[in-house]
Amino acid sequence: MALTVVGTMAFDEIETPFGKSGKIIGGSATYIAWAASNFVQPVNQVSVVGEDFPQAELDALTARGVALDGVQVKKGEKSFYWSGKYHMDMNTRDSLVTDLNVLADFNPVIPESYQGSEFLILGNLTPQVQMSVIDQLTVRPKLIVMDTMNFWMEVAMEDLLKVLKKVDLLMVNDSEARQLSGEYSLVKAAKKILTMGPRYLIIKKGEHGALLFHENHVFFAPAMPLDEVYDPTGAGDTFAGGFIGYLAKTRDISFENMKTAIIVGSAMASFCVEKFGTSRLTEVTHEELNARLEQFVQLVNFDIDLV
Amino acid sequence: MALTVVGTMAFDEIETPFGKSGKIIGGSATYIAWAASNFVQPVNQVSVVGEDFPQAELDALTARGVALDGVQVKKGEKSFYWSGKYHMDMNTRDSLVTDLNVLADFNPVIPESYQGSEFLILGNLTPQVQMSVIDQLTVRPKLIVMDTMNFWMEVAMEDLLKVLKKVDLLMVNDSEARQLSGEYSLVKAAKKILTMGPRYLIIKKGEHGALLFHENHVFFAPAMPLDEVYDPTGAGDTFAGGFIGYLAKTRDISFENMKTAIIVGSAMASFCVEKFGTSRLTEVTHEELNARLEQFVQLVNFDIDLV
Repeated sequence: MALTVVGTMAFDEIETPFGKSGKIIGGSATYIAWAASNFVQPVNQVSVVGEDFPQAELDALTARGVALDGVQVKKGEKSFYWSGKYHMDMNTRDSLVTDLNVLADFNPVIPESYQGSEFLILGNLTPQVQMSVIDQLTVRPKLIVMDTMNFWMEVAMEDLLKVLKKVDLLMVNDSEARQLSGEYSLVKAAKKILTMGPRYLIIKKGEHGALLFHENHVFFAPAMPLDEVYDPTGAGDTFAGGFIGYLAKTRDISFENMKTAIIVGSAMASFCVEKFGTSRLTEVTHEELNARLEQFVQLVNFDIDLV
Repeated sequence: MALTVVGTMAFDEIETPFGKSGKIIGGSATYIAWAASNFVQPVNQVSVVGEDFPQAELDALTARGVALDGVQVKKGEKSFYWSGKYHMDMNTRDSLVTDLNVLADFNPVIPESYQGSEFLILGNLTPQVQMSVIDQLTVRPKLIVMDTMNFWMEVAMEDLLKVLKKVDLLMVNDSEARQLSGEYSLVKAAKKILTMGPRYLIIKKGEHGALLFHENHVFFAPAMPLDEVYDPTGAGDTFAGGFIGYLAKTRDISFENMKTAIIVGSAMASFCVEKFGTSRLTEVTHEELNARLEQFVQLVNFDIDLV
């Protein structure tokens, strides 16, 4: 039931209305691994870092059952670095600095020990890198999940469309779904995207929850209403990690089980935003997670008699 | 199990990206009555119109079990008129014309036949008018629901706060909840508003659903994802009408039953936006409503085993 995760491991420096993070660990694959490792081992990590990346972080991931054979450490180079500042509403942010560093010429290499992973998640990266990973797998995974972003639609749409044909589930936010489909209505956007390759589509709406589309079915999961969102960075990746981690644990990729997996992802994301970076994620207990899942049941379940 | 509805009955002229409505029937009490009359009779309407208001509309409401004894018809005067234009996202609109006409000096008079109504909903109107209705009731209703808007917070906050102390449930949208409480976080806003009088609070988020707060409980109902929102005018009032109509039908004001009532309100609102004005509302059948309620169950229900 192994899970392979492809994405960035990086440094972030974040400013929110609540304060400044300083230089902390970030990256899509980092968040996915922390979330998914609650449910499944091994998590086979594929990424690249510079020699400035802290050994302590790598050790912490190893202790969680995250395999690092596929993480390249580039001597004499620096890790990917991003800094950004959130606006008061926490839904918009400005990127202040983006230094690609080791990411500029990343060529992922899938170790032999990762072959046969039943689940694969392609975090947000250039579509060429995502395709390269798919091409290196000797056995097609049971489920391939892909994340992407507006930027790749602008600079690499042709490659993006090729990867789309190879994946089972695409995960994007609402503005990305609109850009990819050219449709404003999310329902119409979903119908169009489901003709482009993936059989499943998740549209993430941040604090407004997430929608799962498949054939004529649709499922909605809210975000947990919180007193404060301290730092939204990584919430989408954490959601993705909880989602695919739960699927890998249960080895059930039915639509019904995906509904539950989305709730699990939402619960993980609700922890993520409580502190800067991954710090809250690293300490979540099973008791806390189960309590939050119970809160989701209370939040959305209702009895209905037909009228 | 009678329900008394206070609000406007008016003319609207609406432009959306899909077209122009021409001069049609609108008003908060109109939408509430059309929605609530699916569940409860009589609906005791309290409003004011000019002599230009079509008799056919009044007859149609009467045929639905809406009592009009409390609707004043002002000879020689014109009905409230509003025209507006929606932006492409349908979440924002510009008011083009607002002619108060008969609304400028509206003094509601509660007919003797309305006394003893178990349920009261105060649609969006000046707080003085809302208070006047409460003061005229010889028996306090089992549940008083109040709607209001930013405008009254700006020009009549003192009166608004007095009415708030008299009601059981306040219904506002997210920006109104923020303005009333001075809190950006909706959870914090809700906590504050629940100290201002009402024991229940519904925060409407349009296409992003609605939240119900009570003590430490919170419930979330999504909006039904639709191919197109043709005209959002009146969706909030229709939601309110479905909500209180269902409560009045079941005579159960527990938090659990309010959850169901919110889903019913969301279902009614999902019909409302399919056509201009009230036209879709006037033709909804019980079969259609039950089918949509079943869609809501599919949309949000999930099974969870603790992890």
